[in-house]
Amino acid sequence: MLQSSTTESVRTADHASLSRRVTVSPGMCSGGSLIFGRIGDWTWEAVAAASGTNVHAARTAEGHPVYLSFYYYRVRGGRTVHPHGLAFGDELRVDSRVFQFGSQSALTLHRLAPAELDLPGGPLEPSEVHDEPHPDCLYVENVNRWIARSRPGSNQGLFEAAPPDFAYAGLPRMPSVYSPRTLVGRARQAGSFHPEVPQGLVPAGPDHTCEYVLDVNRDLNGAGLVYFAAYFSIFDTALLSLWRSLGRGDEHFLRRRVVDQKLGYFGNADPGAVFTVSVRRWHREADPRIEIADMAMRDTATGELLAVTSIELDLGAASGTP
Amino acid sequence: MLQSSTTESVRTADHASLSRRVTVSPGMCSGGSLIFGRIGDWTWEAVAAASGTNVHAARTAEGHPVYLSFYYYRVRGGRTVHPHGLAFGDELRVDSRVFQFGSQSALTLHRLAPAELDLPGGPLEPSEVHDEPHPDCLYVENVNRWIARSRPGSNQGLFEAAPPDFAYAGLPRMPSVYSPRTLVGRARQAGSFHPEVPQGLVPAGPDHTCEYVLDVNRDLNGAGLVYFAAYFSIFDTALLSLWRSLGRGDEHFLRRRVVDQKLGYFGNADPGAVFTVSVRRWHREADPRIEIADMAMRDTATGELLAVTSIELDLGAASGTP
Repeated sequence: MLQSSTTESVRTADHASLSRRVTVSPGMCSGGSLIFGRIGDWTWEAVAAASGTNVHAARTAEGHPVYLSFYYYRVRGGRTVHPHGLAFGDELRVDSRVFQFGSQSALTLHRLAPAELDLPGGPLEPSEVHDEPHPDCLYVENVNRWIARSRPGSNQGLFEAAPPDFAYAGLPRMPSVYSPRTLVGRARQAGSFHPEVPQGLVPAGPDHTCEYVLDVNRDLNGAGLVYFAAYFSIFDTALLSLWRSLGRGDEHFLRRRVVDQKLGYFGNADPGAVFTVSVRRWHREADPRIEIADMAMRDTATGELLAVTSIELDLGAASGTP
Repeated sequence: MLQSSTTESVRTADHASLSRRVTVSPGMCSGGSLIFGRIGDWTWEAVAAASGTNVHAARTAEGHPVYLSFYYYRVRGGRTVHPHGLAFGDELRVDSRVFQFGSQSALTLHRLAPAELDLPGGPLEPSEVHDEPHPDCLYVENVNRWIARSRPGSNQGLFEAAPPDFAYAGLPRMPSVYSPRTLVGRARQAGSFHPEVPQGLVPAGPDHTCEYVLDVNRDLNGAGLVYFAAYFSIFDTALLSLWRSLGRGDEHFLRRRVVDQKLGYFGNADPGAVFTVSVRRWHREADPRIEIADMAMRDTATGELLAVTSIELDLGAASGTP
């Protein structure tokens, strides 16, 4: 047995695309946010390859560190591949493609497919992701913006600043019909992805609010910023708190099936921060097993909106899975 | 820019060794346990390559899942590479080698070095790890045991069970002087890696105890077991609680420098579990900046010992780092 057994191999399809084979390892699956973090690493790698920028150690012309921060993260779970349904040893094919999104940002699409699935050749198309997703696959849309600190050591007042070698002009353009710009802008303004009750859904029980103390052990990344994947965990902590208040068991929670989750990142925070997370909940009128939890995370002290998310769950699928 | 930019590349040095180049990404560094989780993934890959076993989806002859669980995890931080000192873009060379440790276990050594460091060729030697570590490098020693569930869905009563194709006989043997078997056995029996006050150290303040409720959002892995990396987070949560009780700031905690940490895993737990973590603390008599925190984690309801750890920290280094 002389072969290496890395869990990843990467090849380049075109200059803006990457494709890899992945064997799911303990460090990339759980009921938590490891998978979101791992996909985020793939986003960085895809942007690095597509834009010619060393995204892992990027700096401004003046030498100040800049970070390819997450501004919008959407994930749609498939029948076979969904965020909390991965298990050790699952074999995936991951296709990624990076698109233009202005001079200081990039938009990356990923498709996580069962490795043996017969898929169309060629680069991943936005029309597949948005209009004709394969029902077995998980799709991710990431918008990342280059940001820098305005004061060393502070996570407040981050501002947009791209490294000088960020070669965005050669990236493929995406038809504007698929751009999430308006969607995310509205969510930021309204503090919700659903300022109106979503079509076909009805309120399911009273609103729920909980507090969360920033966990300096778990929520900060290697640059001392609140880690984008930790926002998923914080919202899931609030969701679990709501589920428990409804008498739903932890086991059911662990088997939850995410159909569609959108997360908008609007602020970061420093150690010592406390957040207030408010949750509203609807279910589909015709099928109450389809439920949407709409959450906003605010700095408790200042009221500043830090993030919003909308999680659509299929509770029937969750309770039916062993 | 047509090149891919994966953060990893692997080559096989001998049948029991792997070497890879790694660019540190957000998903593998922080003040938390991501790096321990990632190194654990490399352990699985190294054992898979060395033993010819599909460790990610291993089963008994009867078809029941078995897991290459962590039994002992030791990490020694170097001047340059230490667990909470990694930053985005750091370039590492990681050398790994797997050794025999009985018919149901394996012992894996890793060396994480700055990529440009001039290192001896050939496989990683136990004598380097234990007797002549390079002062810049981080070293890890993992003992993993094959385990299975005795009841589906329960994390109690796990028992040893190796997959039939686990080819351990061809793995290199390690001189018994380097075996951690006695050390770990004693720690399990005593509930501590330091049943006696360690040589040259004196008690530093009163003992500390705190409770921890198992976090089903963050602490379980993709197989529903408490994730080995979560034990690091749980102990660090207890350590942070102790530090706060001493008036030490969170920023200081985030800059802590781990000189040597040992962790023994003796039990797992189910959702709903509550743990009691007790902490004792000593510092070096001649240099109080060198401190050891000795912790035991017990199931609060039953008193069962689940894990012990000893963390040696260099506080001077921590406070001197920007």
